Amino acid sequence: MNNSYSGQYDNDTICAIATSPGMGAIAIIRISGEKSLSILLDIFQSKGNPLTAAAIKSHHLYFGEIYKNEHLLDEVLVSYFKAPHSYTGEDAVEISCHGSEYIQQKIIELLIAKGARMAKPGEFTMRAFLNGKMDLSQAEAVADLIASESITAHDMAIKQMRGGFSQKIAGLRKKLVDFASLIELELDFSEEDVEFADRTKFFELINELKAELTRLKDSFKMGNVLKKGIPVAIIGKPNVGKSTLLNAILNEEKAIVSDVPGTTRDAIEDTIVIDGYTFRFIDTAGLRKADNLVENLGIDRTYDKIEQASLILYVCDMGNSNKESISIILDEFKSYISDNKKHFILVGNKIDKLKKIPSHLKELLNMETVFVSAKRKENIHLLAETLVNHVKNDTLTDDILVNNSRHFEAISHALESILSVEKGFHDQIPTDLIAIDIRQALYHLGSITGEVTTDEILGNIFGKFCIGK
Amino acid sequence: MNNSYSGQYDNDTICAIATSPGMGAIAIIRISGEKSLSILLDIFQSKGNPLTAAAIKSHHLYFGEIYKNEHLLDEVLVSYFKAPHSYTGEDAVEISCHGSEYIQQKIIELLIAKGARMAKPGEFTMRAFLNGKMDLSQAEAVADLIASESITAHDMAIKQMRGGFSQKIAGLRKKLVDFASLIELELDFSEEDVEFADRTKFFELINELKAELTRLKDSFKMGNVLKKGIPVAIIGKPNVGKSTLLNAILNEEKAIVSDVPGTTRDAIEDTIVIDGYTFRFIDTAGLRKADNLVENLGIDRTYDKIEQASLILYVCDMGNSNKESISIILDEFKSYISDNKKHFILVGNKIDKLKKIPSHLKELLNMETVFVSAKRKENIHLLAETLVNHVKNDTLTDDILVNNSRHFEAISHALESILSVEKGFHDQIPTDLIAIDIRQALYHLGSITGEVTTDEILGNIFGKFCIGK
Repeated sequence: MNNSYSGQYDNDTICAIATSPGMGAIAIIRISGEKSLSILLDIFQSKGNPLTAAAIKSHHLYFGEIYKNEHLLDEVLVSYFKAPHSYTGEDAVEISCHGSEYIQQKIIELLIAKGARMAKPGEFTMRAFLNGKMDLSQAEAVADLIASESITAHDMAIKQMRGGFSQKIAGLRKKLVDFASLIELELDFSEEDVEFADRTKFFELINELKAELTRLKDSFKMGNVLKKGIPVAIIGKPNVGKSTLLNAILNEEKAIVSDVPGTTRDAIEDTIVIDGYTFRFIDTAGLRKADNLVENLGIDRTYDKIEQASLILYVCDMGNSNKESISIILDEFKSYISDNKKHFILVGNKIDKLKKIPSHLKELLNMETVFVSAKRKENIHLLAETLVNHVKNDTLTDDILVNNSRHFEAISHALESILSVEKGFHDQIPTDLIAIDIRQALYHLGSITGEVTTDEILGNIFGKFCIGK
Repeated sequence: MNNSYSGQYDNDTICAIATSPGMGAIAIIRISGEKSLSILLDIFQSKGNPLTAAAIKSHHLYFGEIYKNEHLLDEVLVSYFKAPHSYTGEDAVEISCHGSEYIQQKIIELLIAKGARMAKPGEFTMRAFLNGKMDLSQAEAVADLIASESITAHDMAIKQMRGGFSQKIAGLRKKLVDFASLIELELDFSEEDVEFADRTKFFELINELKAELTRLKDSFKMGNVLKKGIPVAIIGKPNVGKSTLLNAILNEEKAIVSDVPGTTRDAIEDTIVIDGYTFRFIDTAGLRKADNLVENLGIDRTYDKIEQASLILYVCDMGNSNKESISIILDEFKSYISDNKKHFILVGNKIDKLKKIPSHLKELLNMETVFVSAKRKENIHLLAETLVNHVKNDTLTDDILVNNSRHFEAISHALESILSVEKGFHDQIPTDLIAIDIRQALYHLGSITGEVTTDEILGNIFGKFCIGK
């Protein structure tokens, strides 16, 4: 075992249904642990030559039958993965059976009768971690990958699963460990006032750590946004059709729609995946009293939502708006928003009221505009395309982003400790006190990759996995 | 292709998600057809030596990555099944990917972009049938097996999938084909009055067919019962707690329960699987006027239900019954039931009203009795055990049973034709007329195994499969 932790590890042989619950053409049942092969040989009869522990090949598919005593349970394909060349690093077996729920259950019951036990959630991946097949942040990425519903969540998870920032963190931590040893050595010889650790190189390492940790810490906002969905606020005067627009986009009746202005009292949030990108739509209380915009902005929740949003859809009623009224409101509105890099998209709604869209309006408004009828669901696809193009052009980076709040916290704590170390040297604080901060930094860096961990942390992480993974 | 039908077959390469829909640890994507291997090699990069068409081994698992252009979609295990050693009999590939719905969808999209198309429901199994990997009744059994929810349904499906009665049918049909050829030959030489077909052997064959078809036809009732559930009627006087008992068994509120006698107007049916056996419970309108049982039996629906049932639970209120009243009712009741082999179980309900169960009642009633409180759900498990024991002891046979109404119809028609043939010879009807009946018999026998079939029949059968099978 390559990792220091082994509290939750036992040598039981575990089994679980690894495919989605319910009926399908095929289901996969997974077994891992010492007894995997002997259990397989006990219950399986190959259609070809009889299988023996000596004859069975790893990574080969065998066709045959599963028997419970004399009773034929199913015709199956089985494969054996010889340790350490398996997902868990242990001897493992996969059974591909007919996807009847009855058969799946009966095979699991049989495996348990033969000495396996039901795997706990995430236990296969936890064993992979404990056997050094992956580090902790990679293990966490496996769960993220399975839960991913959009291209952005998927890409972040797969990058992380393949090493992501944790390899770099592990490399930097290793260097810091070496320095820490030298510093500790100095402490042992403290009366002799020697310096084993090369201070210049040490400060280079500190700077490297500072830069990397700062970059990763800063990436969390974007990483989190991409994971949870790009926030899009829908704003506009009362009764311009904001909720109807949200419904048209979500294609379902999440918001209460009426003709009474001010129907929407609370911000309603919902996410939708368009073209692989997750958007988190924020419907807001309407902005009242259009002639008194400052007062309107006093509707705090709306204002807050706008602050959180990456994209803002300003909705106006094309039947009741003209160029001047729109631009006055928008200009004033923008002046109250702290981040002037926010993207505004003007949504000219209720085009069903017009015979044609006034051409002067289209030309003269100096901003991106989409004309729609939310009520009749016209041009909603154009709006969707516009949203996707914004994300494609602006927010996607090839950088590796932190999107896990556990990592964010550990990185933040590690950065704090590193800054304390730097300050300590600068202020000529005694080395033994600085050593404490170094140990703290090592602890937090190690907690990301799992080099340092506790039962509780592992329980939290793997408890959120599905069973069978 | 070993089968005469090829109308629905094309050489497209098909793909589908074969595991249950939704998120799981693992999902399996299946590809079958000529292009399977070239598509795999196009999108897959092995972690070991680069794979080539020449190097790849059948039935071996390769670990690697699926790429869409430069974009990494997932880390996967893949296997290749070289024709004819695959489920479909064609070249086939299975991809075992992470069970994210997003990844499953993206891989399917990629396969389609590379020239595969989405498989229709049951298309993999239809190809297996068309390529002679199984006959039609075996293919039907695959769907039954996947849908099986009980030991009995499972066992019938698996027996049928492994050949079942269809091999015997096919053998008898082959003999009949040989005779038919000789009979047709006689018709060609009809003016010369020759007999090519040995009449004695022919009558032996006719008798063998008659016996086998009759046995199979008769097995349908039991086969259907085991597939759909063993019918259990719940009868008894009004307000003894029949509906409450049914609810307690089903553990849900299917029946309307009240204290007003006669609440249950219609027979309510529901099935439950106990210990692998499906029971179909029939709640019935209460038997009114206990002093006039004959009139009570005029409640036709109840009477009908009792006739259909294999097991009858006679429920009585232990607070209001004594040995004499129960035995009088039961004796009279049984005399009106045509099949005296039906199993009665006496259910002494409402034991919560009693301090203890009167011992004389328990001893003296000469029938199987279970005392329960349906209201408090006491001893319901004992009743369940009693039901299961009855099935285990009485109804299960090792015979192969017909449980598919398409097979039942074909067998019935074939039997009719065979009887006509027999009668025709007996009545010395002209051979050319008898030949028509022989051809009819051949047609119906062939339709079971799929030696004779139509687009419509295949469409009906495979259209009911899930996609991916």
